[in-house]
Amino acid sequence: MTPFTRRRAESVAALGEERLIAAIRGWLGKACPGGAAGIGDDCAVLPGRGRELRLLTVDPVIFGRHFDARIGPAAAGRKLMNRNLSDIAAMGGIPAVAVVGLILSPDVRTAWLREFYRGLAQAAIKARAKIVGGDIAQAPATAGSFFSAHLTLLGSFAGKRVLTRAGARAGDALYVTGVLGGSLTSGHHHAFSPRLAEGQWLAGRKEVVAMMDISDGLAKDLRQLTPKGCVPALCPGALPRRKGASVEAALSDGEDYELVFAVEAAASPLTLPARAQRAPHPVEATRPSRPLQFERQFARRFPTTPLTRIGSFIRGKRLPAGAVPLDRLHGYEHLR
Amino acid sequence: MTPFTRRRAESVAALGEERLIAAIRGWLGKACPGGAAGIGDDCAVLPGRGRELRLLTVDPVIFGRHFDARIGPAAAGRKLMNRNLSDIAAMGGIPAVAVVGLILSPDVRTAWLREFYRGLAQAAIKARAKIVGGDIAQAPATAGSFFSAHLTLLGSFAGKRVLTRAGARAGDALYVTGVLGGSLTSGHHHAFSPRLAEGQWLAGRKEVVAMMDISDGLAKDLRQLTPKGCVPALCPGALPRRKGASVEAALSDGEDYELVFAVEAAASPLTLPARAQRAPHPVEATRPSRPLQFERQFARRFPTTPLTRIGSFIRGKRLPAGAVPLDRLHGYEHLR
Repeated sequence: MTPFTRRRAESVAALGEERLIAAIRGWLGKACPGGAAGIGDDCAVLPGRGRELRLLTVDPVIFGRHFDARIGPAAAGRKLMNRNLSDIAAMGGIPAVAVVGLILSPDVRTAWLREFYRGLAQAAIKARAKIVGGDIAQAPATAGSFFSAHLTLLGSFAGKRVLTRAGARAGDALYVTGVLGGSLTSGHHHAFSPRLAEGQWLAGRKEVVAMMDISDGLAKDLRQLTPKGCVPALCPGALPRRKGASVEAALSDGEDYELVFAVEAAASPLTLPARAQRAPHPVEATRPSRPLQFERQFARRFPTTPLTRIGSFIRGKRLPAGAVPLDRLHGYEHLR
Repeated sequence: MTPFTRRRAESVAALGEERLIAAIRGWLGKACPGGAAGIGDDCAVLPGRGRELRLLTVDPVIFGRHFDARIGPAAAGRKLMNRNLSDIAAMGGIPAVAVVGLILSPDVRTAWLREFYRGLAQAAIKARAKIVGGDIAQAPATAGSFFSAHLTLLGSFAGKRVLTRAGARAGDALYVTGVLGGSLTSGHHHAFSPRLAEGQWLAGRKEVVAMMDISDGLAKDLRQLTPKGCVPALCPGALPRRKGASVEAALSDGEDYELVFAVEAAASPLTLPARAQRAPHPVEATRPSRPLQFERQFARRFPTTPLTRIGSFIRGKRLPAGAVPLDRLHGYEHLR
């Protein structure tokens, strides 16, 4: 039985990425644990305690998909490590050890692969992570010239907790690190620094209640952070944009590898009151007139990392006047 | 810079798998720890204690390489889990949690993928392992119809130690579980049961000093187990062969997923004395006339698992009369 079909309606492309992930959870049944330990966050969280390796994530780089011939091999290797480090950062964890699974066609240039591994090693050493093993498999002849590398990264908790995507509530303020949009054209997608130190610091702050990294575009990724019965009300003028990036680009380009997180309403007094039942406040009211204590401390600890309050979660389905409508923006869609 | 070359001499195919793995270790430099925690065993062994997850392995299945359209999707899914479980078995470990990294072309049939995951789940549940996360990436358009799945599996120690490939010495007796050869033609390669219980039991026996699983053929894999300055002297008549498999097939077909292990000379009194300096004994002398205590206990504990003493490690370069010459046999060579 061949895995492939010519009928689009029967294919994974027709299902789409989000429904496919939900379907896989169902197909796995009892083999897939529910709750925080299950599929669907930046990292899987394993049971354990102390400095045990409880964070687990996997991400690949594939030639022709995550990089191409315009990018040097060392940059591709760094990107492989850094996009996995960004998932550890998104939980506030500490990276530890990794294994690499390669798929190579026999025509991969040895010198290219050497520089790829040197880049990978460079990013690993910078983050104090170790590469402890791996596997090399040959691509099928039908795939032509082919290169992919999957990195599986393990990490530990930096403090007593990690931040998951669940935890935000109505009224919570939304923040992002860095600037968004234009990742591909600017080269940011292979030259970024994962926000490990920031993520660890944020996981240690009680007022931060949920966090993730932005990989498929803020508009799409925010759905994962949004509490049930709420919408994210973003102020378009507040969005930190890379030079030349439009608001739409900042919301949907993807590969930003920045952190987006929710700060509980009580800590952000100028936002809407928590669990506010009546929605249509102007979005501008979610921006405080002076920095919160938390913002000042972040700025002192990370003076070169931009931190921006971009809006808040509000109860209901209707956006207040002036808020960015996110429905039309899909971000990066896999399997198209 | 493209990763590919038309000049074979510059390609990974010219380097070959073994030299490539050695090269990667060098390229990783300080990012790759030495010793038991490093690259080169069935699993990486991480620092830790007790029931922590200290075993880490990664293996893929790729359509057109590890299975094809003659194999059903559920069998392909089971194979993915079982070949990783075999690596945990090879150390005497207990499997725990796994993540899956998929590469799909958009034309993968959803119903096929469903059965693949059901097979994967079935094998996971049987081994009490959980799938806790993963990633889905799209194959580049140039690869045509494409399916690969990398599974990274974590496990713990069953007892106080795990068995690595290092530890055998001159005089140690060699054993294998099951029968060898003809894995592809018999369908064993996708229908085998990983030797988890046997591996755990063997790791708890003091006289067992080194172990690995047979995936690329005994002749090739044995090189990893052979102590420096020794050769494996195998008795051709003793090799347990699958029905229809020749001695050569049993030694080089690969995908046996059986265990091969060394038992210290002191526990196997009819072998050559440990550290024997004078080699040319007849190979037959390495077979004891009656079962050792260890063999009897194994047979009682695993009555349906064949266990065969196939020879021993002897010091020097010259094989005794009658021993199987392994030099000509290369086993499964990747990247050819």
